[in-house]
Amino acid sequence: MTAALPDLLIEPVVRAALLEDLGRAGDVTAAACIAPGTRMTAHVVARQPGRIAGLDCVRIAAVLMDPAVELIFVHRDGEDAAAGQRLATLSGDARALLSAERTALNLLGRMCGVATLTAAYVQAVRGTGARIACTRKTTPGLRALEKYAVRCGGGANHRFGLDDAILIKDNHIAACGGVGPAMERARASVGHLMSVEIEVDTLAQLEEALAYAPDAILLDNFSLADLGLAVGMAKGKTVLEASGGVTLQTVRAIAQTGVDVISSGALTHSAPVLDVALDAD
Amino acid sequence: MTAALPDLLIEPVVRAALLEDLGRAGDVTAAACIAPGTRMTAHVVARQPGRIAGLDCVRIAAVLMDPAVELIFVHRDGEDAAAGQRLATLSGDARALLSAERTALNLLGRMCGVATLTAAYVQAVRGTGARIACTRKTTPGLRALEKYAVRCGGGANHRFGLDDAILIKDNHIAACGGVGPAMERARASVGHLMSVEIEVDTLAQLEEALAYAPDAILLDNFSLADLGLAVGMAKGKTVLEASGGVTLQTVRAIAQTGVDVISSGALTHSAPVLDVALDAD
Amino acid sequence: MTAALPDLLIEPVVRAALLEDLGRAGDVTAAACIAPGTRMTAHVVARQPGRIAGLDCVRIAAVLMDPAVELIFVHRDGEDAAAGQRLATLSGDARALLSAERTALNLLGRMCGVATLTAAYVQAVRGTGARIACTRKTTPGLRALEKYAVRCGGGANHRFGLDDAILIKDNHIAACGGVGPAMERARASVGHLMSVEIEVDTLAQLEEALAYAPDAILLDNFSLADLGLAVGMAKGKTVLEASGGVTLQTVRAIAQTGVDVISSGALTHSAPVLDVALDAD
Amino acid sequence: MTAALPDLLIEPVVRAALLEDLGRAGDVTAAACIAPGTRMTAHVVARQPGRIAGLDCVRIAAVLMDPAVELIFVHRDGEDAAAGQRLATLSGDARALLSAERTALNLLGRMCGVATLTAAYVQAVRGTGARIACTRKTTPGLRALEKYAVRCGGGANHRFGLDDAILIKDNHIAACGGVGPAMERARASVGHLMSVEIEVDTLAQLEEALAYAPDAILLDNFSLADLGLAVGMAKGKTVLEASGGVTLQTVRAIAQTGVDVISSGALTHSAPVLDVALDAD
Amino acid sequence: MTAALPDLLIEPVVRAALLEDLGRAGDVTAAACIAPGTRMTAHVVARQPGRIAGLDCVRIAAVLMDPAVELIFVHRDGEDAAAGQRLATLSGDARALLSAERTALNLLGRMCGVATLTAAYVQAVRGTGARIACTRKTTPGLRALEKYAVRCGGGANHRFGLDDAILIKDNHIAACGGVGPAMERARASVGHLMSVEIEVDTLAQLEEALAYAPDAILLDNFSLADLGLAVGMAKGKTVLEASGGVTLQTVRAIAQTGVDVISSGALTHSAPVLDVALDAD
Amino acid sequence: MTAALPDLLIEPVVRAALLEDLGRAGDVTAAACIAPGTRMTAHVVARQPGRIAGLDCVRIAAVLMDPAVELIFVHRDGEDAAAGQRLATLSGDARALLSAERTALNLLGRMCGVATLTAAYVQAVRGTGARIACTRKTTPGLRALEKYAVRCGGGANHRFGLDDAILIKDNHIAACGGVGPAMERARASVGHLMSVEIEVDTLAQLEEALAYAPDAILLDNFSLADLGLAVGMAKGKTVLEASGGVTLQTVRAIAQTGVDVISSGALTHSAPVLDVALDAD
Repeated sequence: MTAALPDLLIEPVVRAALLEDLGRAGDVTAAACIAPGTRMTAHVVARQPGRIAGLDCVRIAAVLMDPAVELIFVHRDGEDAAAGQRLATLSGDARALLSAERTALNLLGRMCGVATLTAAYVQAVRGTGARIACTRKTTPGLRALEKYAVRCGGGANHRFGLDDAILIKDNHIAACGGVGPAMERARASVGHLMSVEIEVDTLAQLEEALAYAPDAILLDNFSLADLGLAVGMAKGKTVLEASGGVTLQTVRAIAQTGVDVISSGALTHSAPVLDVALDAD
Repeated sequence: MTAALPDLLIEPVVRAALLEDLGRAGDVTAAACIAPGTRMTAHVVARQPGRIAGLDCVRIAAVLMDPAVELIFVHRDGEDAAAGQRLATLSGDARALLSAERTALNLLGRMCGVATLTAAYVQAVRGTGARIACTRKTTPGLRALEKYAVRCGGGANHRFGLDDAILIKDNHIAACGGVGPAMERARASVGHLMSVEIEVDTLAQLEEALAYAPDAILLDNFSLADLGLAVGMAKGKTVLEASGGVTLQTVRAIAQTGVDVISSGALTHSAPVLDVALDAD
Repeated sequence: MTAALPDLLIEPVVRAALLEDLGRAGDVTAAACIAPGTRMTAHVVARQPGRIAGLDCVRIAAVLMDPAVELIFVHRDGEDAAAGQRLATLSGDARALLSAERTALNLLGRMCGVATLTAAYVQAVRGTGARIACTRKTTPGLRALEKYAVRCGGGANHRFGLDDAILIKDNHIAACGGVGPAMERARASVGHLMSVEIEVDTLAQLEEALAYAPDAILLDNFSLADLGLAVGMAKGKTVLEASGGVTLQTVRAIAQTGVDVISSGALTHSAPVLDVALDAD
Repeated sequence: MTAALPDLLIEPVVRAALLEDLGRAGDVTAAACIAPGTRMTAHVVARQPGRIAGLDCVRIAAVLMDPAVELIFVHRDGEDAAAGQRLATLSGDARALLSAERTALNLLGRMCGVATLTAAYVQAVRGTGARIACTRKTTPGLRALEKYAVRCGGGANHRFGLDDAILIKDNHIAACGGVGPAMERARASVGHLMSVEIEVDTLAQLEEALAYAPDAILLDNFSLADLGLAVGMAKGKTVLEASGGVTLQTVRAIAQTGVDVISSGALTHSAPVLDVALDAD
Repeated sequence: MTAALPDLLIEPVVRAALLEDLGRAGDVTAAACIAPGTRMTAHVVARQPGRIAGLDCVRIAAVLMDPAVELIFVHRDGEDAAAGQRLATLSGDARALLSAERTALNLLGRMCGVATLTAAYVQAVRGTGARIACTRKTTPGLRALEKYAVRCGGGANHRFGLDDAILIKDNHIAACGGVGPAMERARASVGHLMSVEIEVDTLAQLEEALAYAPDAILLDNFSLADLGLAVGMAKGKTVLEASGGVTLQTVRAIAQTGVDVISSGALTHSAPVLDVALDAD
Repeated sequence: MTAALPDLLIEPVVRAALLEDLGRAGDVTAAACIAPGTRMTAHVVARQPGRIAGLDCVRIAAVLMDPAVELIFVHRDGEDAAAGQRLATLSGDARALLSAERTALNLLGRMCGVATLTAAYVQAVRGTGARIACTRKTTPGLRALEKYAVRCGGGANHRFGLDDAILIKDNHIAACGGVGPAMERARASVGHLMSVEIEVDTLAQLEEALAYAPDAILLDNFSLADLGLAVGMAKGKTVLEASGGVTLQTVRAIAQTGVDVISSGALTHSAPVLDVALDAD
């Protein structure tokens, strides 16, 4: 099961999203039409089948608007939901829940969308030994949540930011005057727990890079044939990551070349939202 | 031309996105591999054709990392870009620009994606008189930017939040004991500049609602036939908004019924990112 | 009854106000003189008659300093209090309540002051059909609270900010080259739920503006005679708002001209505070 | 001349006020009606005579919206302005200046209002040797600015918060079991630079307090006769502060009793705004 | 007993410290290795003898990570702990407590370190009548906590910042043209509760300063002999503070000269941490 | 040379530190004693020899108070300074520079202190091949700056937080039921760029851990003899880190055992400040 993020990381995002929606005057429709003290029970429902991620956001949004809300979660992040399935039931102040509804669903739908797309990729490579990984192409402000949703989908995380691993690209190699100097400078400048990956465009570069024992090598836009050759050259010596041109249609063939990791920005930047709704009892 | 948002609204979003990427240690790869003081010129390029939105984010990200950066913008938000077209050129500190790259592209790509999808909907209804509008189904934290991107795509904005217009839905009608009491409470509770819209599910409800002269009526999941009947009943008496089941395939037929506004959450919650990149000289 | 603002909007204001008062070292007098664990019961009392607004601020200030405080509210926002009347009773940690006292009273007194002055204006126009409205001349940082206090006083709210309605003034008309182009540009640039109001200085301008069917027209500094003529020309065609030179002495005569709305910045920018106090048992 | 506050303290207040007004979409009227790049020159004008305070807020608001704005200040904080007098001239981007206008004037008008009322009190006691002081009854969020405005009006500041001086009141005395124990605890608990003031209600309490050499004694709601007696008992031994029932009508008589300081919350909580405006060239 | 700071002042510091440690992904080790729902009991233990300060930080860190944590505090701030002594026991969610551990100990260890060093100085001057005071040489961001820790150590606080007392140094005297003008400007510019201290380098300056009756005089880097002469000249006329060259070895001799206060930045800027740990049951 | 942190990471820390010192009223002494517009030139001087770190904090503090300040830096972070050496010269507004002085020096002194102590450790192990590393025992709020200061001292960084590497300790091993399950769970739960280190207490545990090929093994409180045996067993198979009981006296002997990394919390939690000052011209 995917380990949840601490509330301390989620709450500021949910709070900011609620405030963005409440604006300066709050929910003027609920204030006008719903008598104070009115109670309401409503169900969070998946309208489409998909992989669940983000129920903590629903909980926190509801609690922020009504600290006394009662919540029953009948599913957990990382599980699959069928179309029409209830994920949770909320009972509380009607104004508060109606005001929280859109924010809760915006976050849940987006995170389920990321998890669902990731799960499809993971399913596509089942049995090949390859892992599916996301990138830093995440929604600004939501990186921690989207990376978590990728994990709920069965995927793995790449770097969380510019600061937690070295990824040497063509500009860096050029600035250092070659793969060797770049690798040496990278190793020298970081502590013993920071990994170093290098991006290569050709098999020749791959060979050159291997000599410096990077923790991983990113094979950028390699053809299937070249991926196969790369695996032959490097399998077991380092982690081989394929990236570029990855789609649900192509991912299994890429995986079958034997690479260890396949990464795709689309998991986070272009996953369509999962259709989720709040249905009043 | 679409009027730009003030920097005061954009800067906090860009700054937070940069900090999310820089983490605690900053760009360790650039720090290791790029000598301090190294200069760089790079071009922001659209790899796909699309509608431009978000160049201010690129500018602000670059300036936040290098206050002395030189920027040339060869396109403006709201214009169309061809595949391969340069949108801007940045000259400045190499470390700073490489550190800003992903944040700038994440924001630009997402906003261009929203604008491009919106433009496709707008193009699809050209000549019908219908306007395309977004909803509150936006990315948490990015509402102002995504609503702006919709405008860059030629679309119109619906409510910006829960506080700037009344939108009476089924739960509110039920809580008030009918369309009439709901409309009356709504009008009584807000000032003279706040509009009141009501959502209806049937033609009967539409007729009932019309009697209270709302500023707009949302026709929720109406069939094309019913939309046509609704237009016959209400055209010119109020603004008619169609919502539900709107796709690029269906939108023109919906528009041809004569409704005034067609709204879709997909413009913001499921627009695929536009592929944009930063190419070093 | 006036609908309360969500705590999520109030709490940051109260918290910031407490922190402003606590400074770096907290309440040094209470720390020196009150033994830890000392209990206290105290009553929030109105020393003057007035309209109540802001009891939520008292509650939140008390809870932020002592989460276990017990609170009894014997009045509600929107009710009238007589001089000497108890509004609430607080029982809790003595240090905490003494530290919260000034912040709670500063907010309550100010909001009651706004509500009380508004109620006086509303009373003055009773029976005329005119509504009293506030403006954007609010205290920086307290707009949501002061607009709410106006509602507690029986008044209506004008725009909440620059972004939730169009208000075309002389500079805008001049920049557009006339009332007509300004109205057209305004309508074209906003969504179907955003209202457009235009400010006019003369009857001639009023006539010109009426042709473009704005949602409201602001009659700026019109004489009583001209207000009467304006009502004759425009009543029922749009909302007529009178502004300028409004005082408690003049407001009834203005209302009797038949205008729909009378707005005054003085409700928020110059309302004297209502004298409220915390009396220990 | 009154020493200005550092921009670092003012800027967050002005920025928050601008953001409160800009909301999510910015100034939609300016965006619709003013062509981008339009220039504008405008003058900040006092419509009433008064004491100036807050020009830095005008400057910062203008610069935050248009970093290239040109500013000419023809007056300074602490000077008196006649009705109709120009205080400053701003030349810059028209959209930016129109968007900043209300925020700048809200702050300037409020601060001038506080300074003007303070100056009237100071004028009323001229020649008596008494100083006029404000209290902690300030607008939440604006304490630093309002305390500064009091100084611009020629007044002095009392405590800035709960943490920078001891002020022993009746509750504290009761909790300690008398004036003596309260004074002793107070002295023992703070450092050598923190002053200790004690509030007394009677001449008997005054006598008791004097024995403990407080830095100041607050005479709360004393009659003029008792104030005179108090001065006779204590003048020169400590600072004597009169408070309670202070108005422009009563303040000179109070001062003539010989007290050192007269404090009034009305300076900050009930000062009417000074009428200031932005007039376009 | 030292009066605790309000949670409102401590919580933001602890929250920020936790977020600094949790980063974007939270505690990945606990997430990987500890099953959700696992319970844990652990003890906060002093590994060295020392003066306790900061237990509120431990409590708040634990509660922020696990709102249902059970806490037993067997000691209080301001007490002395022996090596190996348990200070508190925490029972709660194992992941949460392990994630909070380092942040809680970093704060506790640092504050105990400050309190312990202060207590050593206080012990060194016992019986002399001199008080030990800290300075503004505190850790950025932790001033309130470190000043509190000094109080837990039996020390007194000097200024909390640039704004709560006047401290005239050589640059200020030079800018004013002498001690007299500096003292006069200082008195004239502040309210009746703000103290004025002046720093002097020589006995001649001391004599000059005494004529202006400052609330305190800082004797900067005076020899023991000169301190004795200074006490002879000024004892009882003002508060005499010795500063400069103060160490645990020299402090008693300094105190024996008869000065009232001895201040040292080392209490806060160079106190070694006290070794504290969290031991699981 | 040590790569600088981006200003975007430093500025919020410096700004918060300045605001902490300026409080509500700013520098009242400078405001009273220094005429507005007075210019000043001053030098940042090291009073003790040491390793420089933190000059960017000085620059940013000065610029935040006086955006027009002129700065000349005659040294760089990572260089050694002799006692009395000038590090930088600042020319600008006297009030601004005096107000920034303490904040700038507090940050600079602390960072130089960390760098200087680190450099001493690095010097002590010169020629052994061992690297000196810091820990997460940093000052809350200053982790990024202190980790940077360690790099300026020639040291290496361990984890930046709980989220950028796995460090399995005894509690985790116990919860998983052994070293093997813990290693397996750790590897399975993280992406390919996250390192896994495990802490062992005995040579037997070391042997067990080696079988799972962790990226590093922390030898906790091993005797010198056991460290030597551990090196014999594991050198070259993984990174060996020694921790516990590390002092300037013991570090060389530890390094001579052949371990790769020696880590010590004292580098950050107990480094005495370096004495730095601002001397006016």
